[in-house]
Amino acid sequence: MPKITQKNLTKFTENVLKSLNINEKDAQITADVLVQADLRGVASHGVARLKRYVDGLEDGLILKNTKPEIIQEAPSTAAIDAKNGLGQPAGYFAMNLAIEKAQKTGIGVVTVKNSNHYGIAGYYPLMALEHNLIGISLTNTNPLVAPTFATDMMIGTNPISLAVPGGKELPFVLDMATSTVPRGKLEVYNRAEKPLPSGWALDETGQSSSNAGHILKNMLSRTGGGLAPLGGIGELFGGHKGYGLAMLVDILSGVLSGSAYGDGVGARKHPNVGHFFMALNIENFISLDEFKQRMDDYIRKLKNLRKAQDQAKIYIHGEKEFQKEADYKKNGIPLQEKVVDVLKEYGERFGIDLDLY
Amino acid sequence: MPKITQKNLTKFTENVLKSLNINEKDAQITADVLVQADLRGVASHGVARLKRYVDGLEDGLILKNTKPEIIQEAPSTAAIDAKNGLGQPAGYFAMNLAIEKAQKTGIGVVTVKNSNHYGIAGYYPLMALEHNLIGISLTNTNPLVAPTFATDMMIGTNPISLAVPGGKELPFVLDMATSTVPRGKLEVYNRAEKPLPSGWALDETGQSSSNAGHILKNMLSRTGGGLAPLGGIGELFGGHKGYGLAMLVDILSGVLSGSAYGDGVGARKHPNVGHFFMALNIENFISLDEFKQRMDDYIRKLKNLRKAQDQAKIYIHGEKEFQKEADYKKNGIPLQEKVVDVLKEYGERFGIDLDLY
Repeated sequence: MPKITQKNLTKFTENVLKSLNINEKDAQITADVLVQADLRGVASHGVARLKRYVDGLEDGLILKNTKPEIIQEAPSTAAIDAKNGLGQPAGYFAMNLAIEKAQKTGIGVVTVKNSNHYGIAGYYPLMALEHNLIGISLTNTNPLVAPTFATDMMIGTNPISLAVPGGKELPFVLDMATSTVPRGKLEVYNRAEKPLPSGWALDETGQSSSNAGHILKNMLSRTGGGLAPLGGIGELFGGHKGYGLAMLVDILSGVLSGSAYGDGVGARKHPNVGHFFMALNIENFISLDEFKQRMDDYIRKLKNLRKAQDQAKIYIHGEKEFQKEADYKKNGIPLQEKVVDVLKEYGERFGIDLDLY
Repeated sequence: MPKITQKNLTKFTENVLKSLNINEKDAQITADVLVQADLRGVASHGVARLKRYVDGLEDGLILKNTKPEIIQEAPSTAAIDAKNGLGQPAGYFAMNLAIEKAQKTGIGVVTVKNSNHYGIAGYYPLMALEHNLIGISLTNTNPLVAPTFATDMMIGTNPISLAVPGGKELPFVLDMATSTVPRGKLEVYNRAEKPLPSGWALDETGQSSSNAGHILKNMLSRTGGGLAPLGGIGELFGGHKGYGLAMLVDILSGVLSGSAYGDGVGARKHPNVGHFFMALNIENFISLDEFKQRMDDYIRKLKNLRKAQDQAKIYIHGEKEFQKEADYKKNGIPLQEKVVDVLKEYGERFGIDLDLY
C-alpha cells in the first residue's frame, strides 16, 4: 500500500478544506481529527471519508465557517449550537469547554446540537488525557441499527468513548460502536463473498441473514433489516442491552442536546447530529498519583491473566491503536489505493501536492 | 406461588434488619431497595438476597450503622467513604447528594468506596426521576466475568443503569449487567439440565461450553472460566466491547472512588465495593417540557416500528418492570417457596409475622 507521513497527510487534508474556503483553524482541526483516525488504524473514519465532507460542504449540507454558539451555560455545563457546521471544530470547541470546566469545578458536561459527523469519537476523550482528566464523548449517527424485535433501522451505531490516564501503562481508551459490527464490516464480507456470522445483521423479516449483499441492498433502499445491536438479534445474547446502550447515547447526545435523534438524524438537508462531551477531574475524587498507580495495577492484573487456548495476549482498549500510531508515525500511514485515487483527484483539482513516500 | 403485599414485605424485611440492631432509617432504606427489586420483577436482587445481608452483618463483613463520610467535596462532586456499612443506605445518601448538586449546579457526580452490594443498580437513578433529573448509577461487583482472550474471572457483571424522565410515556430505565447473562441464568439452565447457548460462558480453556454444571463448579472453585462479557467470547460478536464497558464501570466506580477493583472486590473480609452516581439537570441543556415531548416522540417512534416475524411488540427499557410493578402492587408480590422458607425462619427466630396473602 502507498504510504504517507502524518505531517504530509494532515497538510494535504487541511489544504483541500482551505481550498473550499474553510478557515485555517477549522481546516487544521478537521484534518487533525481525520488523520488521527488513520494514524490509530481506524481507516474507515480517516481521510477515506474526506469525500463525504467535501461533498457535504459543496452541497450545503455542512455549512462553512460557522461559529459554535453557547446557548446556555453554567460553571459545570453548557449547551452548544454548532449551526450545521463541520462536526470536528464543534467537537473540539465543546470538548475544550468541558475540559476547562472540569479543571475549574471538577466536572464539565457539554452538549452540541445541529452538528455533523465529527470523526472518531475517541479523538475528544484523548484531548482530556493531555490534562490528566477522564474524557467521555458520545454521538448519535445515521440510523443503521434495528431495535430489538423491530425490522427497521431507527438507531445509529452510536459510539461510546472513554479515555482514562494510565501511569506507566498506556491509557485506557474505549471507542466502541454500540452495534455488533459497523456497516463497513458487511461491505468487507460482501466483497469477499463470505457468509456473515449469525447475529451480525438482520433481513426484512427481522431474522439473522448471512447474505451481506442482500442486507446492504436493503439498508440502502431502507426496505427493512439492518445491523444488530451489540448482543445480536433478539434477547438471547443480550441484544436488548446493545439496543439500550444505543438509546442511552441517543438520549444524551440527541434528545438532551436539542438535536435530531433516532431516524431524524440525517433525514433533512442538514444532518443535525448531536454530541455529548464530559470531562472529569480525577483529583476531585482521589489523588492523581494514587489513581495512576491503581490504573497501572488494574491493567497489569488484566494482562497477566491466564490466556485462552490459542491466544497469546490480553489487550487493553486503545493498546492496538497506540501500537499502530507508533508504527505509522515511524514508518508512514498506509493508504488504500482507492483512497489515494480520490486524494489525487482533489490534488489535481485544487493544485495541491500529495506527498507520498 | 405465595404472595405478599409490598407494605408487608417491606415491613418484615425492615424488622429483620432492626432485629440485628440496624437503625430504623438504614433498615427502611435497605428494605425498600430490596422490595423494589421484587416489585419490578428482578427477584434475584430482592428479598431472595436477604440471607446474604443477614449473614454479612452477623459475620462482620458488613458493619452496622456506619455513617457514610464525605471525604472530599466540591459544588458538583463528592467522594464518600461508606465505612464498610450496608450498600443501600450509602447508595441512597450518595444519590441524594448527587441530586442536590444537580439541582444547584446542573450536575452532581458522587463516588462511594468501602461499600457493599447495593441491590439493583436501577433503584438510584429512579430516585433522580422524582426530581425530573436524569440519573446514572454504576457499581462494580465480585469478579465473575473473564476478559476477552483470558480464562480467569477478573471483572464483575458491573451494571450500568440510567433513568430518563418521559412525558406521557413511561420513563426510560436501563439497568443492565455488562455480561451476556448473569450467573443466575446458568443456575436456571443447570437445574433444568439444559445446554447453555454458545457464547454465554467459557470453560477453563477459554472456549464456550454448554455444560452449566461444569462452568458453575469451575466458577466456585475458581479453576478457570466464567461468564462471557456482553458480546460473547472473543471478538467476533463484540465481546471486547462488553469487556470494555465492564472496565468503564470498574474504573469509574472502583479505581476512581478508591475502592477495590477487578478481583480485589470481595477478596478481603470487607468486600470494598465501589459505586458511581450521577444526576443531570435537563434544564441546564433544554427546557424540561421540550425534553419530555422529545422523549415521548422518540419512544413512540420506536414502538411503532414494524415488528420482526413472530414478535408482537417492541419494548422500551424499564417498561416490563413498570408493568410488573403495577401488577404486583395490585395483586401482591409472588415469592418463591424457597425464599418464603428462609423468611419464615427469620420470622420465627426474631419473632416477626410474615403476613402472606
